[in-house]
Amino acid sequence: MSQEVTIVRNVLEANDRLAQELKNNFRAKKILCLNLMSSPGAGKTTLLERTLTDLKTEFKMAVIEGDLQTDNDAQRVAATGAQAVQINTEGGCHLDSGMVLDALKSIDTEGLDILFVENVGNLVCPAEFDVGEDYKVTLLSVAEGDDKPEKYPFMFHISAVMLLNKVDLMPYVDFDLDKATGHAKKLNADIEVMPISARSGENMEDWYKWLRDKRAEKL
Amino acid sequence: MSQEVTIVRNVLEANDRLAQELKNNFRAKKILCLNLMSSPGAGKTTLLERTLTDLKTEFKMAVIEGDLQTDNDAQRVAATGAQAVQINTEGGCHLDSGMVLDALKSIDTEGLDILFVENVGNLVCPAEFDVGEDYKVTLLSVAEGDDKPEKYPFMFHISAVMLLNKVDLMPYVDFDLDKATGHAKKLNADIEVMPISARSGENMEDWYKWLRDKRAEKL
Repeated sequence: MSQEVTIVRNVLEANDRLAQELKNNFRAKKILCLNLMSSPGAGKTTLLERTLTDLKTEFKMAVIEGDLQTDNDAQRVAATGAQAVQINTEGGCHLDSGMVLDALKSIDTEGLDILFVENVGNLVCPAEFDVGEDYKVTLLSVAEGDDKPEKYPFMFHISAVMLLNKVDLMPYVDFDLDKATGHAKKLNADIEVMPISARSGENMEDWYKWLRDKRAEKL
Repeated sequence: MSQEVTIVRNVLEANDRLAQELKNNFRAKKILCLNLMSSPGAGKTTLLERTLTDLKTEFKMAVIEGDLQTDNDAQRVAATGAQAVQINTEGGCHLDSGMVLDALKSIDTEGLDILFVENVGNLVCPAEFDVGEDYKVTLLSVAEGDDKPEKYPFMFHISAVMLLNKVDLMPYVDFDLDKATGHAKKLNADIEVMPISARSGENMEDWYKWLRDKRAEKL
Protein backbone atom coordinates (compact mmCIF):
# COMPACT_ATOMS: atom_id res chain seq x y z
CA MET A 1 0.00 0.00 0.00
CA SER A 2 2.84 2.47 0.71
CA GLN A 3 3.90 2.39 -2.95
CA GLU A 4 0.32 3.26 -3.83
CA VAL A 5 0.25 6.18 -1.38
CA THR A 6 3.52 7.52 -2.83
CA ILE A 7 2.10 7.37 -6.34
CA VAL A 8 -1.04 9.24 -5.30
CA ARG A 9 1.08 11.93 -3.63
CA ASN A 10 3.26 12.27 -6.73
CA VAL A 11 0.17 12.61 -8.93
CA LEU A 12 -1.28 15.33 -6.69
CA GLU A 13 2.03 17.22 -6.54
CA ALA A 14 2.41 17.12 -10.32
CA ASN A 15 -1.16 18.38 -10.61
CA ASP A 16 -0.52 21.27 -8.22
CA ARG A 17 2.56 22.37 -10.18
CA LEU A 18 0.56 22.68 -13.40
CA ALA A 19 -2.32 24.29 -11.50
CA GLN A 20 0.07 27.00 -10.31
CA GLU A 21 1.13 27.58 -13.92
CA LEU A 22 -2.55 28.03 -14.85
CA LYS A 23 -3.14 30.40 -11.92
CA ASN A 24 -0.17 32.58 -12.97
CA ASN A 25 -1.51 32.69 -16.50
CA PHE A 26 -5.05 33.63 -15.34
CA ARG A 27 -3.69 36.31 -12.99
CA ALA A 28 -1.59 37.88 -15.76
CA LYS A 29 -4.57 37.93 -18.11
CA LYS A 30 -7.09 38.98 -15.43
CA ILE A 31 -9.28 35.96 -16.15
CA LEU A 32 -11.61 34.72 -13.40
CA CYS A 33 -11.51 30.91 -13.48
CA LEU A 34 -14.22 28.85 -11.76
CA ASN A 35 -14.27 25.10 -11.23
CA LEU A 36 -17.91 23.89 -11.35
CA MET A 37 -18.51 20.59 -9.60
CA SER A 38 -21.50 18.46 -8.61
CA SER A 39 -23.08 15.03 -8.81
CA PRO A 40 -24.18 13.96 -12.28
CA GLY A 41 -27.32 15.79 -13.33
CA ALA A 42 -27.28 18.57 -10.72
CA GLY A 43 -27.54 21.16 -13.48
CA LYS A 44 -24.04 22.46 -14.24
CA THR A 45 -24.60 22.67 -17.99
CA THR A 46 -28.02 24.28 -17.61
CA LEU A 47 -26.47 26.84 -15.23
CA LEU A 48 -23.85 27.62 -17.85
CA GLU A 49 -26.35 27.87 -20.71
CA ARG A 50 -28.37 30.48 -18.82
CA THR A 51 -25.36 32.36 -17.43
CA LEU A 52 -23.63 32.55 -20.82
CA THR A 53 -26.83 33.82 -22.41
CA ASP A 54 -27.78 36.35 -19.72
CA LEU A 55 -24.30 37.87 -19.31
CA LYS A 56 -23.31 37.66 -22.98
CA THR A 57 -23.07 41.44 -23.49
CA GLU A 58 -21.35 42.02 -20.15
CA PHE A 59 -18.47 39.50 -20.21
CA LYS A 60 -16.42 37.51 -22.66
CA MET A 61 -16.73 33.94 -21.36
CA ALA A 62 -15.45 30.50 -22.35
CA VAL A 63 -16.06 26.97 -21.11
CA ILE A 64 -13.94 23.85 -20.76
CA GLU A 65 -16.26 20.85 -20.53
CA GLY A 66 -15.22 17.64 -18.82
CA ASP A 67 -17.05 14.36 -19.47
CA LEU A 68 -16.23 10.68 -19.62
CA GLN A 69 -17.67 10.47 -23.13
CA THR A 70 -19.61 12.56 -25.71
CA ASP A 71 -19.30 16.24 -26.57
CA ASN A 72 -22.99 16.86 -25.83
CA ASP A 73 -22.31 19.47 -23.15
CA ALA A 74 -19.78 21.43 -25.22
CA GLN A 75 -22.36 21.55 -28.02
CA ARG A 76 -25.09 22.81 -25.66
CA VAL A 77 -22.77 25.50 -24.33
CA ALA A 78 -21.43 26.49 -27.77
CA ALA A 79 -25.03 27.06 -28.91
CA THR A 80 -25.06 30.18 -26.68
CA GLY A 81 -22.23 31.63 -28.78
CA ALA A 82 -19.50 31.13 -26.17
CA GLN A 83 -16.23 29.34 -26.91
CA ALA A 84 -16.40 25.75 -25.68
CA VAL A 85 -13.83 22.96 -25.64
CA GLN A 86 -14.66 19.38 -24.68
CA ILE A 87 -12.31 17.15 -22.71
CA ASN A 88 -13.19 13.43 -22.76
CA THR A 89 -11.57 11.66 -19.83
CA GLU A 90 -12.35 8.20 -21.34
CA GLY A 91 -13.58 6.90 -18.01
CA GLY A 92 -11.48 9.16 -15.76
CA CYS A 93 -13.43 10.40 -12.73
CA HIS A 94 -12.13 14.01 -12.57
CA LEU A 95 -10.33 16.71 -14.52
CA ASP A 96 -6.74 17.59 -13.69
CA SER A 97 -4.69 20.67 -14.44
CA GLY A 98 -2.79 18.99 -17.29
CA MET A 99 -6.06 18.38 -19.14
CA VAL A 100 -7.13 22.00 -18.60
CA LEU A 101 -3.75 23.30 -19.76
CA ASP A 102 -4.11 21.25 -22.95
CA ALA A 103 -7.70 22.36 -23.56
CA LEU A 104 -6.73 25.98 -23.02
CA LYS A 105 -4.61 25.85 -26.18
CA SER A 106 -7.84 25.69 -28.17
CA ILE A 107 -9.31 28.79 -26.49
CA ASP A 108 -8.70 32.36 -27.52
CA THR A 109 -7.97 33.95 -24.12
CA GLU A 110 -7.46 37.45 -25.54
CA GLY A 111 -9.84 39.73 -23.63
CA LEU A 112 -11.44 36.76 -21.85
CA ASP A 113 -13.17 37.73 -18.60
CA ILE A 114 -14.41 34.43 -17.18
CA LEU A 115 -13.39 30.82 -17.82
CA PHE A 116 -15.72 28.13 -16.51
CA VAL A 117 -14.35 24.62 -16.08
CA GLU A 118 -17.24 22.18 -15.87
CA ASN A 119 -15.83 19.14 -14.11
CA VAL A 120 -16.91 15.50 -14.48
CA GLY A 121 -20.17 14.88 -12.59
CA ASN A 122 -18.83 13.41 -9.35
CA LEU A 123 -19.18 14.69 -5.78
CA VAL A 124 -16.02 12.92 -4.58
CA CYS A 125 -12.86 12.76 -6.74
CA PRO A 126 -12.81 16.22 -8.43
CA ALA A 127 -12.51 17.84 -4.98
CA GLU A 128 -8.90 16.58 -4.73
CA PHE A 129 -7.65 18.17 -7.97
CA ASP A 130 -7.05 21.89 -8.34
CA VAL A 131 -7.37 22.91 -12.00
CA GLY A 132 -5.98 26.45 -11.59
CA GLU A 133 -9.32 27.94 -10.53
CA ASP A 134 -9.84 31.02 -8.37
CA TYR A 135 -12.87 29.40 -6.75
CA LYS A 136 -14.59 26.06 -6.57
CA VAL A 137 -18.36 26.27 -7.04
CA THR A 138 -20.47 23.25 -6.11
CA LEU A 139 -24.03 22.69 -7.26
CA LEU A 140 -26.39 20.58 -5.20
CA SER A 141 -29.77 19.76 -6.69
CA VAL A 142 -32.58 19.78 -4.12
CA ALA A 143 -33.70 16.46 -5.65
CA GLU A 144 -30.51 14.89 -4.24
CA GLY A 145 -31.55 15.48 -0.63
CA ASP A 146 -30.49 17.77 2.22
CA ASP A 147 -28.04 15.23 3.69
CA LYS A 148 -25.45 15.55 0.93
CA PRO A 149 -23.12 18.17 2.53
CA GLU A 150 -22.87 15.99 5.64
CA LYS A 151 -22.27 12.82 3.62
CA TYR A 152 -19.83 14.29 1.07
CA PRO A 153 -18.05 16.75 3.38
CA PHE A 154 -14.79 17.43 1.56
CA MET A 155 -16.49 18.88 -1.52
CA PHE A 156 -18.40 21.43 0.55
CA HIS A 157 -15.43 22.10 2.83
CA ILE A 158 -13.34 23.37 -0.10
CA SER A 159 -16.04 25.21 -2.10
CA ALA A 160 -16.56 28.97 -2.03
CA VAL A 161 -20.17 28.65 -3.15
CA MET A 162 -22.93 26.06 -2.82
CA LEU A 163 -25.58 26.67 -5.46
CA LEU A 164 -28.74 24.89 -4.31
CA ASN A 165 -30.16 24.25 -7.72
CA LYS A 166 -33.61 23.13 -8.95
CA VAL A 167 -35.51 25.01 -6.24
CA ASP A 168 -38.48 24.85 -8.63
CA LEU A 169 -38.74 21.18 -7.50
CA MET A 170 -38.94 22.12 -3.79
CA PRO A 171 -42.72 21.50 -3.52
CA TYR A 172 -42.27 17.92 -4.78
CA VAL A 173 -39.25 16.72 -2.79
CA ASP A 174 -38.30 16.45 0.90
CA PHE A 175 -35.53 19.00 1.20
CA ASP A 176 -34.85 21.06 4.32
CA LEU A 177 -32.95 24.13 3.16
CA ASP A 178 -31.87 25.09 6.69
CA LYS A 179 -30.52 21.61 7.34
CA ALA A 180 -28.44 21.52 4.13
CA THR A 181 -27.16 25.06 4.72
CA GLY A 182 -26.38 24.30 8.37
CA HIS A 183 -24.30 21.26 7.48
CA ALA A 184 -22.44 23.13 4.73
CA LYS A 185 -21.66 26.07 7.07
CA LYS A 186 -20.42 23.69 9.75
CA LEU A 187 -17.92 22.31 7.22
CA ASN A 188 -17.02 25.72 5.89
CA ALA A 189 -18.18 28.85 7.73
CA ASP A 190 -17.41 31.05 4.69
CA ILE A 191 -19.36 29.11 2.09
CA GLU A 192 -21.94 31.22 0.27
CA VAL A 193 -25.24 29.44 -0.18
CA MET A 194 -27.53 30.49 -3.03
CA PRO A 195 -30.82 28.74 -3.75
CA ILE A 196 -31.45 29.05 -7.49
CA SER A 197 -33.16 27.41 -10.40
CA ALA A 198 -31.04 27.45 -13.53
CA ARG A 199 -34.02 26.02 -15.39
CA SER A 200 -36.69 28.56 -14.34
CA GLY A 201 -34.23 31.44 -13.78
CA GLU A 202 -35.24 31.94 -10.13
CA ASN A 203 -32.68 33.88 -8.05
CA MET A 204 -30.06 33.84 -10.79
CA GLU A 205 -29.31 37.50 -9.99
CA ASP A 206 -27.61 36.41 -6.71
CA TRP A 207 -25.22 34.27 -8.72
CA TYR A 208 -24.62 36.99 -11.29
CA LYS A 209 -23.84 39.52 -8.53
CA TRP A 210 -21.29 37.09 -7.07
CA LEU A 211 -19.72 36.61 -10.52
CA ARG A 212 -19.48 40.38 -11.06
CA ASP A 213 -17.89 40.90 -7.63
CA LYS A 214 -15.31 38.16 -8.09
CA ARG A 215 -14.49 39.25 -11.62
CA ALA A 216 -13.97 42.84 -10.38
CA GLU A 217 -11.52 41.57 -7.73
CA LYS A 218 -9.29 40.19 -10.50
CA LEU A 219 -8.81 43.63 -12.13
CA MET B 1 2.79 7.01 -15.84
CA SER B 2 3.60 3.32 -16.44
CA GLN B 3 4.32 2.84 -12.72
CA GLU B 4 0.90 4.34 -12.01
CA VAL B 5 -0.79 2.01 -14.52
CA THR B 6 0.92 -1.01 -12.94
CA ILE B 7 -0.29 0.03 -9.49
CA VAL B 8 -3.85 0.43 -10.71
CA ARG B 9 -3.72 -3.01 -12.32
CA ASN B 10 -2.35 -4.56 -9.12
CA VAL B 11 -5.10 -2.92 -7.07
CA LEU B 12 -7.80 -4.24 -9.41
CA GLU B 13 -6.31 -7.75 -9.44
CA ALA B 14 -6.11 -7.86 -5.64
CA ASN B 15 -9.73 -6.68 -5.53
CA ASP B 16 -10.85 -9.41 -7.93
CA ARG B 17 -9.16 -12.13 -5.86
CA LEU B 18 -11.09 -11.11 -2.74
CA ALA B 19 -14.27 -10.68 -4.78
CA GLN B 20 -13.94 -14.29 -5.89
CA GLU B 21 -13.63 -15.35 -2.25
CA LEU B 22 -16.85 -13.48 -1.49
CA LYS B 23 -18.62 -15.06 -4.47
CA ASN B 24 -17.64 -18.54 -3.32
CA ASN B 25 -18.93 -17.76 0.15
CA PHE B 26 -22.25 -16.40 -1.19
CA ARG B 27 -22.68 -19.39 -3.51
CA ALA B 28 -22.08 -21.86 -0.68
CA LYS B 29 -24.60 -20.09 1.54
CA LYS B 30 -27.12 -19.44 -1.27
CA ILE B 31 -27.07 -15.69 -0.59
CA LEU B 32 -28.04 -13.35 -3.42
CA CYS B 33 -25.67 -10.36 -3.30
CA LEU B 34 -26.50 -7.12 -5.11
CA ASN B 35 -24.24 -4.10 -5.59
CA LEU B 36 -26.41 -0.94 -5.62
CA MET B 37 -24.82 2.02 -7.34
CA SER B 38 -25.87 5.52 -8.43
CA SER B 39 -25.07 9.20 -8.26
CA PRO B 40 -25.43 10.79 -4.82
CA GLY B 41 -29.09 11.26 -3.96
CA ALA B 42 -30.62 8.97 -6.59
CA GLY B 43 -32.51 7.11 -3.88
CA LYS B 44 -30.54 3.96 -3.00
CA THR B 45 -31.31 4.18 0.73
CA THR B 46 -34.98 4.97 0.17
CA LEU B 47 -35.19 1.95 -2.17
CA LEU B 48 -33.67 -0.22 0.56
CA GLU B 49 -35.95 1.14 3.28
CA ARG B 50 -39.04 0.26 1.27
CA THR B 51 -37.73 -3.09 0.00
CA LEU B 52 -36.62 -4.24 3.46
CA THR B 53 -40.01 -3.29 4.87
CA ASP B 54 -42.18 -4.76 2.11
CA LEU B 55 -40.29 -8.07 1.83
CA LYS B 56 -39.58 -8.46 5.55
CA THR B 57 -41.67 -11.61 6.00
CA GLU B 58 -40.50 -13.15 2.74
CA PHE B 59 -36.69 -12.90 2.99
CA LYS B 60 -33.96 -12.51 5.56
CA MET B 61 -32.00 -9.51 4.29
CA ALA B 62 -28.94 -7.52 5.38
CA VAL B 63 -27.25 -4.36 4.16
CA ILE B 64 -23.66 -3.16 3.95
CA GLU B 65 -23.69 0.63 3.66
CA GLY B 66 -20.84 2.54 2.05
CA ASP B 67 -20.34 6.26 2.68
CA LEU B 68 -17.46 8.70 2.91
CA GLN B 69 -18.64 9.79 6.35
CA THR B 70 -21.58 9.34 8.81
CA ASP B 71 -23.58 6.24 9.63
CA ASN B 72 -26.87 7.97 8.73
CA ASP B 73 -27.77 5.44 6.05
CA ALA B 74 -27.04 2.36 8.20
CA GLN B 75 -29.30 3.88 10.86
CA ARG B 76 -32.11 4.49 8.37
CA VAL B 77 -31.84 0.93 7.12
CA ALA B 78 -31.53 -0.62 10.59
CA ALA B 79 -34.79 1.11 11.55
CA THR B 80 -36.59 -1.38 9.27
CA GLY B 81 -35.30 -4.20 11.49
CA ALA B 82 -32.72 -5.51 9.00
CA GLN B 83 -29.08 -6.06 9.92
CA ALA B 84 -26.99 -3.10 8.73
CA VAL B 85 -23.25 -2.44 8.85
CA GLN B 86 -21.71 0.89 7.91
CA ILE B 87 -18.39 1.23 6.08
CA ASN B 88 -16.86 4.72 6.15
CA THR B 89 -14.36 5.12 3.32
CA GLU B 90 -12.96 8.34 4.83
CA GLY B 91 -12.99 10.09 1.49
CA GLY B 92 -12.58 7.00 -0.70
CA CYS B 93 -14.76 7.12 -3.81
CA HIS B 94 -15.91 3.47 -3.98
CA LEU B 95 -16.19 0.26 -2.01
CA ASP B 96 -13.83 -2.63 -2.68
CA SER B 97 -14.09 -6.32 -1.88
CA GLY B 98 -11.69 -6.10 1.07
CA MET B 99 -14.03 -3.61 2.78
CA VAL B 100 -17.04 -5.84 2.12
CA LEU B 101 -15.17 -8.89 3.43
CA ASP B 102 -14.37 -6.99 6.64
CA ALA B 103 -17.92 -5.69 7.06
CA LEU B 104 -19.31 -9.17 6.52
CA LYS B 105 -17.69 -10.31 9.78
CA SER B 106 -20.27 -8.20 11.62
CA ILE B 107 -23.22 -9.82 9.84
CA ASP B 108 -24.94 -13.02 10.84
CA THR B 109 -25.16 -14.77 7.47
CA GLU B 110 -26.93 -17.84 8.85
CA GLY B 111 -30.10 -18.25 6.78
CA LEU B 112 -29.52 -14.94 5.00
CA ASP B 113 -31.34 -14.71 1.64
CA ILE B 114 -30.26 -11.36 0.22
CA LEU B 115 -27.29 -9.10 0.95
CA PHE B 116 -27.47 -5.56 -0.42
CA VAL B 117 -24.24 -3.60 -0.75
CA GLU B 118 -25.05 0.10 -1.05
CA ASN B 119 -22.01 1.64 -2.70
CA VAL B 120 -20.68 5.19 -2.33
CA GLY B 121 -22.80 7.63 -4.34
CA ASN B 122 -20.72 7.94 -7.49
CA LEU B 123 -21.60 7.07 -11.08
CA VAL B 124 -17.98 6.56 -12.12
CA CYS B 125 -15.47 4.81 -9.82
CA PRO B 126 -17.59 2.05 -8.19
CA ALA B 127 -18.17 0.52 -11.64
CA GLU B 128 -14.53 -0.65 -11.70
CA PHE B 129 -14.64 -2.64 -8.45
CA ASP B 130 -16.43 -5.94 -8.12
CA VAL B 131 -17.47 -6.51 -4.48
CA GLY B 132 -18.47 -10.18 -4.88
CA GLU B 133 -21.99 -9.38 -6.10
CA ASP B 134 -24.17 -11.54 -8.31
CA TYR B 135 -25.52 -8.45 -10.04
CA LYS B 136 -24.87 -4.75 -10.26
CA VAL B 137 -28.02 -2.63 -9.97
CA THR B 138 -27.82 1.04 -10.95
CA LEU B 139 -30.38 3.66 -9.96
CA LEU B 140 -30.88 6.73 -12.10
CA SER B 141 -33.14 9.44 -10.74
CA VAL B 142 -35.26 11.08 -13.44
CA ALA B 143 -34.22 14.42 -11.91
CA GLU B 144 -30.67 13.73 -13.17
CA GLY B 145 -31.69 13.84 -16.82
CA ASP B 146 -32.11 11.35 -19.65
CA ASP B 147 -28.55 11.86 -20.98
CA LYS B 148 -26.81 10.07 -18.12
CA PRO B 149 -26.47 6.56 -19.64
CA GLU B 150 -24.82 8.10 -22.70
CA LYS B 151 -22.50 10.29 -20.59
CA TYR B 152 -21.57 7.67 -17.96
CA PRO B 153 -21.55 4.60 -20.22
CA PHE B 154 -19.44 2.13 -18.26
CA MET B 155 -21.81 2.04 -15.29
CA PHE B 156 -24.79 1.12 -17.47
CA HIS B 157 -22.72 -1.23 -19.63
CA ILE B 158 -21.95 -3.46 -16.62
CA SER B 159 -25.30 -3.27 -14.78
CA ALA B 160 -27.98 -5.95 -14.94
CA VAL B 161 -30.72 -3.49 -13.98
CA MET B 162 -31.33 0.23 -14.40
CA LEU B 163 -33.93 1.39 -11.89
CA LEU B 164 -35.32 4.70 -13.17
CA ASN B 165 -36.21 6.13 -9.79
CA LYS B 166 -38.33 9.13 -8.72
CA VAL B 167 -40.85 8.72 -11.55
CA ASP B 168 -43.23 10.70 -9.29
CA LEU B 169 -41.17 13.75 -10.40
CA MET B 170 -41.73 13.06 -14.12
CA PRO B 171 -44.35 15.84 -14.54
CA TYR B 172 -41.88 18.43 -13.20
CA VAL B 173 -38.66 17.53 -15.04
CA ASP B 174 -37.58 17.11 -18.67
CA PHE B 175 -36.91 13.40 -18.89
CA ASP B 176 -37.46 11.31 -22.00
CA LEU B 177 -37.86 7.73 -20.81
CA ASP B 178 -37.41 6.27 -24.30
CA LYS B 179 -34.21 8.22 -24.82
CA ALA B 180 -32.65 7.08 -21.53
CA THR B 181 -33.75 3.47 -22.12
CA GLY B 182 -32.50 3.55 -25.71
CA HIS B 183 -29.04 4.73 -24.67
CA ALA B 184 -28.83 2.15 -21.88
CA LYS B 185 -29.88 -0.69 -24.21
CA LYS B 186 -27.32 0.42 -26.78
CA LEU B 187 -24.62 0.04 -24.12
CA ASN B 188 -26.03 -3.21 -22.81
CA ALA B 189 -28.76 -5.02 -24.75
CA ASP B 190 -29.62 -7.20 -21.74
CA ILE B 191 -30.12 -4.43 -19.17
CA GLU B 192 -33.53 -4.54 -17.50
CA VAL B 193 -35.09 -1.11 -17.18
CA MET B 194 -37.69 -0.53 -14.46
CA PRO B 195 -39.27 2.88 -13.88
CA ILE B 196 -40.14 3.07 -10.18
CA SER B 197 -40.63 5.47 -7.31
CA ALA B 198 -39.11 4.20 -4.08
CA ARG B 199 -40.71 7.19 -2.34
CA SER B 200 -44.30 6.73 -3.56
CA GLY B 201 -44.04 2.96 -4.06
CA GLU B 202 -44.99 3.11 -7.74
CA ASN B 203 -44.05 -0.03 -9.74
CA MET B 204 -42.06 -1.53 -6.87
CA GLU B 205 -43.63 -4.91 -7.70
CA ASP B 206 -41.49 -5.11 -10.87
CA TRP B 207 -38.39 -4.81 -8.71
CA TYR B 208 -39.67 -7.33 -6.17
CA LYS B 209 -40.44 -9.83 -8.93
CA TRP B 210 -36.89 -9.46 -10.24
CA LEU B 211 -35.50 -9.99 -6.71
CA ARG B 212 -37.61 -13.12 -6.22
CA ASP B 213 -36.51 -14.56 -9.59
CA LYS B 214 -32.83 -13.91 -8.96
CA ARG B 215 -33.00 -15.24 -5.42
CA ALA B 216 -34.70 -18.42 -6.70
CA GLU B 217 -31.86 -18.93 -9.18
CA LYS B 218 -29.39 -19.16 -6.29
CA LEU B 219 -31.16 -22.13 -4.72
